[in-house]
Formats: sequence, structure tokens, C-alpha cells
Amino acid sequence: MNRLNKRKIQRDPLTEIRELIAKRDWSSLKELLTKRPVADIADLLSDLDKPERVLLFRCLPRTLGAEVFAYLETTDQDSLLKELTDEETRSLIQNLAPDDRTALLSELPAEVTQKLLTLLDPEELKEARELLGYPEESVGRLMTPDYVSLRPDWTVSQAMEEIRRTAQSRETINVLYVTDAASRLVGVVSLRQIVLSRPGEKVRGIMRSPAISISAFEDREKAAKLMERYDLLALPVVDSQGVLVGIVTADDVLEVAQEETTEDFHKGAGISPLKVSLKEATAQLLYKNRVTWLLGLVLVYLLSGNIISLFEGTIAKMVPLVFFLPLLIDSAGNAGAQSATLMVRALATGDVKARDWARVVLREVALALALGAIMGAIVWGVAALQVSAQVGIIAGISMVLVVLASCVIGVAIPFILSKLGWDPAAASSPLVTSVADILGVIVYFSVARWWLGI
Amino acid sequence: MNRLNKRKIQRDPLTEIRELIAKRDWSSLKELLTKRPVADIADLLSDLDKPERVLLFRCLPRTLGAEVFAYLETTDQDSLLKELTDEETRSLIQNLAPDDRTALLSELPAEVTQKLLTLLDPEELKEARELLGYPEESVGRLMTPDYVSLRPDWTVSQAMEEIRRTAQSRETINVLYVTDAASRLVGVVSLRQIVLSRPGEKVRGIMRSPAISISAFEDREKAAKLMERYDLLALPVVDSQGVLVGIVTADDVLEVAQEETTEDFHKGAGISPLKVSLKEATAQLLYKNRVTWLLGLVLVYLLSGNIISLFEGTIAKMVPLVFFLPLLIDSAGNAGAQSATLMVRALATGDVKARDWARVVLREVALALALGAIMGAIVWGVAALQVSAQVGIIAGISMVLVVLASCVIGVAIPFILSKLGWDPAAASSPLVTSVADILGVIVYFSVARWWLGI
Repeated sequence: MNRLNKRKIQRDPLTEIRELIAKRDWSSLKELLTKRPVADIADLLSDLDKPERVLLFRCLPRTLGAEVFAYLETTDQDSLLKELTDEETRSLIQNLAPDDRTALLSELPAEVTQKLLTLLDPEELKEARELLGYPEESVGRLMTPDYVSLRPDWTVSQAMEEIRRTAQSRETINVLYVTDAASRLVGVVSLRQIVLSRPGEKVRGIMRSPAISISAFEDREKAAKLMERYDLLALPVVDSQGVLVGIVTADDVLEVAQEETTEDFHKGAGISPLKVSLKEATAQLLYKNRVTWLLGLVLVYLLSGNIISLFEGTIAKMVPLVFFLPLLIDSAGNAGAQSATLMVRALATGDVKARDWARVVLREVALALALGAIMGAIVWGVAALQVSAQVGIIAGISMVLVVLASCVIGVAIPFILSKLGWDPAAASSPLVTSVADILGVIVYFSVARWWLGI
Repeated sequence: MNRLNKRKIQRDPLTEIRELIAKRDWSSLKELLTKRPVADIADLLSDLDKPERVLLFRCLPRTLGAEVFAYLETTDQDSLLKELTDEETRSLIQNLAPDDRTALLSELPAEVTQKLLTLLDPEELKEARELLGYPEESVGRLMTPDYVSLRPDWTVSQAMEEIRRTAQSRETINVLYVTDAASRLVGVVSLRQIVLSRPGEKVRGIMRSPAISISAFEDREKAAKLMERYDLLALPVVDSQGVLVGIVTADDVLEVAQEETTEDFHKGAGISPLKVSLKEATAQLLYKNRVTWLLGLVLVYLLSGNIISLFEGTIAKMVPLVFFLPLLIDSAGNAGAQSATLMVRALATGDVKARDWARVVLREVALALALGAIMGAIVWGVAALQVSAQVGIIAGISMVLVVLASCVIGVAIPFILSKLGWDPAAASSPLVTSVADILGVIVYFSVARWWLGI
């Protein structure tokens, strides 16, 4: 029984929807859709072909439609907007939450944005222009003015009344904001606290003050860090006078945090931040964001090739040295890239702080010596067996030195960048490996020259 | 005025605290501490020396003390526990939220855990043993039994009564869980909905049903994904019979998501998951988790060195070919690592899905040809100028082919791993670069052999 049930649930909803569309059975379609979570409806929409997609979208009640729309990717939003009538578009835009509306207007092509702005009523237009006035990637672009504000001298039952009166159109009521007569933020209070307090109690007596808040001009990444650190469901946003101008909610911030992490991943592989999803990125954009590092590294390799030529005499005296050169520099590069990756991530999560540098670098020295020793021993063994004892000793000693240097550089660069106030993520693996490359060439042939006494 | 004020706030709280401790002014200390957020108090504690730390911790009210304790790193928790009396420890453990208690007991050394378990009363002991009975990294280890449950046939005002009665000891009341007589989960309802509904309305009429839920035995990563996708503040956890056994809250899941992301970063650089923070990791642990990949790669480089020796005849006929070998294989490795990093991250965030493979691979082919063309052109130019036209043509053609192959492999491996149900993050940069290494050697010398007709 249970099993049968499961199979029924797992029946492909797309097929079912296509059948209902073919039958023009709008009421069943509406019923089937509205009980699903927003994220699932959005997925279904983006899986359908264009004509079906519009039909399905029109089946959704207005507010649900707006929520689903906000969840779609920009390309799907764009294609849907092209199919809707002006009247439908107006209604859609009006039903979007203000922060989703800002996101939509700032992501669409400028001419589409202009057209959409003409569809808004004066009040909404003012709001949209204001939010769009904040710099890109600022907290202002992320916030919504849909919050409930209370006065400190209200009683809990007055507060409850205000919450009931305004809640319907507010994004969250789990946290409420207390402002003075000049609209300055003076505290926050949770719905939980309100519900659990006696009706006659004053808001002032139960609010948390001062409230943790952020300026609308701050970087949105800072909002994400604050909310994570203090486990906040929403963060109040203030202007330079301390006036409450909006709130940022946890769901928007999660998305920001995820985007920032993706950028860190990309930087780690020498890719400039894409700013759009990989699925939506054009081949041209990807080319532009990847080619810079690749060509830069080609130049590094050409340079290290030229350094090799400086040691032509040494090489001529002992050609088999060359056999172990790629092994040496690539292995050191890998070890250094490990160190840099560990450091960059630990600094990003706050796991390691700038003041910890001495302990971390010391541990890295011990660790690098141990790693270099085992790698050097293998190279020494193989080189001694396959070539000669001399090449074995030179390659083995060089391995220990180069692994040590690469690891320390890998750990140090992120620290130095973060001290300078730069993004430690710029200490990408390609940067570290190319430093290891040049260093490896110099160390290897210098050791050889010194050992051979030439 | 404002400026002065700011300076006062920015005065180092550590110095202030040390002064108050020296003066034995416990009441000022208590006042200074209790108005700070939990995360800040925890930071202050870990910055102090051991004797001061215990003194400070004893100033905190019991429940706040437990919250702060839960926020500390394992080493700090451990050192603090050693200083506390049995009575203080008992009170601390009892004041911890059940999920924090489980986390503490599972992270501490076994003998400390055993000692702590003896301090719990029978009811708490049962709860702790139950939560510890779930597999590591399972949802069961993360959940708390502290939720409010309602019955579907209660009215809103009955529900409100129950919430007021039980809320004090519950982790969250923003979401409430509706269960039937057999404790099976039948729906969820938000506090918002309760507050906004008429007092006489039935819970059944306003609850969302069926509720999105998860089994206690599922991987905790799946809980994180579900909550992110559906923007949930808390996720109900059920057993195989659908009985509600606990809830997982957003703050715990955020931590899990961050840990998983860190693991992906580490895998991308060929580091086995650490399971502890980098700050707490010993040099031995780091050695163990880094050395495997490094030695594996040393073997790959030795193998590619042996493949080179197969082409000894070709090299002997044209020695300068060797000059461009490292450039060729390293560049191709970098391009392939870019592709793999983009893919692994896009699959992890759900930005690209397995079914998108055809489009993504096709775009990658176009892109790789463009990247290979410019890189090949540079190598061709330099080689033709510095060595000979023949070496230029061979190196240029090889560059295009090897970049193409590496990029396609970089994109394909994550897809294939994810199709097989494995973790795409295993397609790390070191894996891709070592494949590019061997491939590069074979392609380069084969092209040379074919072009030179030998």
C-alpha cells in the first residue's frame, strides 16, 4: 500500500501537467499547482516549452504567480515577460515583493527595465527608483521596506494590534522593529517575545537594545557575515542618521553568501567572477573571464623556460637532471596550492584570524618539512635507481627545499593580502603554482651547480 | 560628540574586562557581559587566559552561560570543562539545548563524554543516548526534540495557549508542528498564521499539509539542501512510521552547509576532508590528509616521465621540443582545472543539472577551441621565433588539441561522477591536471612523430 502510494507521488508531474494543458482543464491544473511549494512550481515552469509556460503561469493566483516569478532565472523571467500583456505585467510587478522587484529591474536589459518602470504607479515608482539608487552589491539593493515597526511606549496588546493590521503585506513578522518619533531604530523585539509577554507590558521593557544594524551603503557580503555570526532571521538597515529604511531577510542573504562562495571557488582556479549563473553564461563571457589567467600563466612558463636557459651549462654537464624537473615543480606547486586553499577558506569562514599567523606559519613549516621529506625520499630513490646517485641527491634535496618554500608562500600570501585589506581569495592555486614553478627552476639548478661545484 | 561616543564604544573590551576582573567587580562585569550578543561573549572568552576565562564564565547567568559555551570551539570547551566543578558542569550540561549537548558529547574525547553522561538525570540521559544513537553526519545528530506540537482539531486560541505554556523551553516557536493522536506529523503552521487567524478557527484549516520533512537517518547535507530550496526556518524530522521525533533549525543547518562547502574547497585542492577546523587541526592530521594526493601525483609524474622515454627517438631527432613540454602540459592542466571547478561548483549549487550535460559540453568545445587557439598561437609564435618553424607548428597544434581534451575532460568528469551517484567534487584540479599531464605528453610527441614522419 505504502509502496503504491509512493509510486503515485513519484509520477512525473510534467506529463500530468502537459495532459491537463492539452485537455484545457484549468481548474485541475490550478489545484495541482497551488498545493506545491514555490520552488517546485518554478522548476516545472522552466522545464516547459514557451507556449505551455505562459498558459501555466496564467493559471497561478496573482500573489503565488509573483512568488514563483521571483524564483525563476533571469532568462526565464525575460522570456515570460515577452509573452505577457501590459496589464498582466503591471499586475505581476505590483505583486512582487519590493526586494524581488529591485532584483528584477537591475538584472533585466535596460530597455526592458525602462518599459517596466512606466507600468508602476507613482508610489511604487518612487520606491523602485530609491532602491535602484543604491550601489550594486550594496545592502540597499537587497533590502525590503516591508517590515512592521512599533513604538517603545506601546503596550504588547497595542503592538499585537499593529502586527495584525499590517502583517498581511509584510515580508516577515518574526522580528519587529522599534523606532522613535523620528523613525530612528531604537531596538528589536521578536514575535515570540510579544506572544509570551503580558498584554499590558511596554515594548520598551521587552525589546533588545541597541539593535544590531547595518548601513544601506555597506557591502552586502557584510550583511551576510553579521547575520551568520549573530544567528539573525532579519537585519535592520539604517541610513547615516540611524533612521530605519528597510530590512534584509535571511533568504536573500543566503543567496548572497552562496554567490560569494562561488566567486571564491572560481578565483581559486583563476577565473574572474562571472556575476551570472554558469548555465546562463555565454561562451564569450566565459572566454573573457578565463583567458586572462591562462595567458598570464603562459607568460610565466615562458619566463621559467628562459630561466632554464641560463643554466644551459649545468644542464649540458648533466642532461638527466631535466627528467625530474616537471616532477619537482609540479609537486611543489600542488603542495603550495593545498596550503593556499586551506588558508583562503579558513580566513573566509573566520576559522583562522589574521592574529593567528605566527602559530599557523610555524605549524606549516613543520608540516612542509615532513611532506617534503617523503616526497624527496621517493624522488631520490627513483632518480638514484634510474639515473645516478648524484642526480638522486640533487633532486631529493631540491624537493625538500621547494616544497618548504611553496607551502610557506601558500600560507603567507593569503595572510598578507588580508592584512592589506585585499581579498585573500586572490591567492589562487594558479598564482601559487606559478611562483612554485619559477622558484623550483632556480632552486633545482642552483643546488645542482653547488653540488657539482660548477 | 558623536565621534567621542564612537571612540568610547570602540574601546577595547578585553582591557576593560581584565581591569574589572583585577578589581573583583563582579556585578559590573556581569552587566557589561550580559548586554553583548552571544557570539561576542564567546570571542572574548577564547581571547582570555585560562584562569580569567573561568572567572568570566562564572559571572554569566546559567542559560546565557550555556548558550555561550555552545558557541565555543571544542578545545576551549574542553579546557573550560576541566576547570569547572562537578556541580557547575552538571548545571551547564542541563542548560544546554539538546542538539548542542549532542554535538558536545560527540566531539569530546570518549572518557570525558562518559564522565559527563554520569552527571545527567535519567530523562536527559535517555535523550542524549537516543540522539547519540543516530549515525554520525545524520540528521538525527543535528535535531532537537524542543518543538511545540499542536493537534489539528484545536482552535487557534487553544493553540495559542499551548504555545504560551510550552514556549519558554522550546528552541523555536516561529514554526509549529501539527501531529495526530499517534504523534505522526500531519502538517505545519507558522506562528504568523496563528497570530493572524481568528481565535475560533481550527488548526486544520490553516496548516500547510503535507509538510516537507526528512528522516532522522538521512545525511545532514540533504536537510541543508531541502531547507535552502524551500526557504525553511526549521525542518521537521520523522522516523520510518512518520512519527515526529525532532526538528532541525536553520542555524545548525547553516553550519553544516558551510562545513560541506569547506570540504568541497579542500577536495578541489586534493585534501581529504579534515572534519575539524583548520585552527584546531594538528600537523599530524594535516599531514595524513594532504600526503595521499601529493604522493599519488608524484607517481603520475613518474609515469609521464616514463612515457616521455618511449619517445626518446623523436626527442633525439629534435631536442628543442622539450623546451615547450612543461608550458604545454601545465597550460592545458590549468584550462582543464578551470572547467572542472566551474562544473563542480555549478552542480553543488544546483545551478547546472545533470540533464544539461549536452548543452554544457557543446559550449565547452567551442570555448576550448577559442582558448586553445590563442594559447596555441602564442606558443607557435614564440617557438617559431626562438627555435624553428617546425617546432612552432608542432607545439601550436598540440596546444589546441590538449586544451580541447583537458577542458572536455574537466567538464565531463563531474557530470559522470554525479550520474554514478558519487560526489562530483572528487573531480579535483589535481586529478584533472594529472590527466592533462599524461595526455599532453602523448599528444605532443605523437603530433611531432606524425609531422616529422618518423
